[in-house]
Amino acid sequence: MQTIGFIGTGVMGSSMAGHLLAAGHTLHLTTRTRARAQELLNHGAVWHETPAALAPRCDTVCTMVGFPADVEAVYFGADGLLAAARPGTLLIDFTTSCPDLAARIAAEARSRGLRTLDAPVSGGDKGAREATLSIMVGGDREVFEAALPLFNLMGRRIVHQGPAGSGQHAKMCNQIAIAGNMIGVCEALAYARRAGLDPEQVLASIASGAAGSWSLSNLAPRMLAGDFAPGFYVKHFVKDLGIALESARAMKLDLPGLALALRLYRELAEAGAAECGTQALIRRWEASGGR
Amino acid sequence: MQTIGFIGTGVMGSSMAGHLLAAGHTLHLTTRTRARAQELLNHGAVWHETPAALAPRCDTVCTMVGFPADVEAVYFGADGLLAAARPGTLLIDFTTSCPDLAARIAAEARSRGLRTLDAPVSGGDKGAREATLSIMVGGDREVFEAALPLFNLMGRRIVHQGPAGSGQHAKMCNQIAIAGNMIGVCEALAYARRAGLDPEQVLASIASGAAGSWSLSNLAPRMLAGDFAPGFYVKHFVKDLGIALESARAMKLDLPGLALALRLYRELAEAGAAECGTQALIRRWEASGGR
Repeated sequence: MQTIGFIGTGVMGSSMAGHLLAAGHTLHLTTRTRARAQELLNHGAVWHETPAALAPRCDTVCTMVGFPADVEAVYFGADGLLAAARPGTLLIDFTTSCPDLAARIAAEARSRGLRTLDAPVSGGDKGAREATLSIMVGGDREVFEAALPLFNLMGRRIVHQGPAGSGQHAKMCNQIAIAGNMIGVCEALAYARRAGLDPEQVLASIASGAAGSWSLSNLAPRMLAGDFAPGFYVKHFVKDLGIALESARAMKLDLPGLALALRLYRELAEAGAAECGTQALIRRWEASGGR
Repeated sequence: MQTIGFIGTGVMGSSMAGHLLAAGHTLHLTTRTRARAQELLNHGAVWHETPAALAPRCDTVCTMVGFPADVEAVYFGADGLLAAARPGTLLIDFTTSCPDLAARIAAEARSRGLRTLDAPVSGGDKGAREATLSIMVGGDREVFEAALPLFNLMGRRIVHQGPAGSGQHAKMCNQIAIAGNMIGVCEALAYARRAGLDPEQVLASIASGAAGSWSLSNLAPRMLAGDFAPGFYVKHFVKDLGIALESARAMKLDLPGLALALRLYRELAEAGAAECGTQALIRRWEASGGR
């Protein structure tokens, strides 16, 4: 059993840290809002005020925070991990963040004798709760292999994608595929309504054929029900698509579908839907008039 | 048992007509290239030179031709169905064509005492061969119900979508959803290659989660293998997306994803890929340099 640090106990992080604790590991925690860690503290986790206070106590430190700026602060900040961790410590970032930041963390960590992996996940709350996450991992292969027993406590599809940053790149591929598909799903429903069709009947015709997708089966019914409760937040999708587009541009790769999706989701967030689920994109066509 | 006419025995039409013949119906045929009807003629179907020669012999006439102009010629032409069919005859158009043309056929047919349905399908060669097509039907409900025994010989998901033209509108929804998703799938793979990832490993991470879709599971592997053999032709997809965009514009509906997809597919066709399968869209990103 290891002593593991976990930084960031939001909806996803809490479930993931809970699996580590349940498996018998010793868990040290810090997060922005202590109340959100209370459940884990009740089950025996140990609280620290800062990443720097937590790091020297741990064999492995996991991070699952919000935005790249948060990742940067947790790793590079005055109270950050990189300066405080003991040589040999493994640092795993589960946050969906910038590939180049992951590479920068890896380089700085290497110079300090630390090991790192970038390991963004997909599967949402449900995947985190049920330990069925897909985990996309970047970093040295032998470090990946050393971390596999921990990953196996949290996920089901765990794939080494390449050197540092490759986990983040793979997650960007996931978000890019979703982005194009969400446009198709919304436009299909908008067309159905405008043509006077019953969109439920249209779904009955198309959802299990070549137009079929996870989003069409899972999110289109919520769109039709006007249920915009967040499975995945618009504000986080805007963050992810922004990272993907910036990263694509840095690689001189033209992705017009991604650019369109980012524009539509930014407009949606600016129109007040930042805290809604990504299925709220359908509102764009409702607002433009008529069903 | 009925006497059924079938006009258009291409890849899809041959299989569909074959199911009618196998069920014991008497089959009358015409198609542009007689050789493509030979197999059915060998099994007892009766040949005619024109739709007008075939129509008076039939209780029901099915059409499955290529483009809206072909539908127009078969129905309204000098040797067309509308002038030649006996009152009471049921005319079913399986071609993916314009919703407003379907409505025009229905109006003209009604004035002549004929019954019509627009009934575009999805499911491809395989669905036609295995009689598992999704059939999206527009027209009067009682006519739909009268035609159900025939539809059941050819398909599995058979849905009445509304009045004349509604089958075509539902099929447009199918194509719109596919179009957005194809952009997402291609851009995800293009990003994976450019970032130096192994796209197969990326698919292993993302294909069964929220990015999952029929196209990601079925077409992405063909893209990676450089297999551009047509399941569904680029030239037909360009036709369908053009109909969908024109129809959306007529309804004053702004579909920027569809417009982008049509532009990308038109450029692909103009670049020489009209006879390829729709998965050839990935070539756009290969041509723009580097993996």
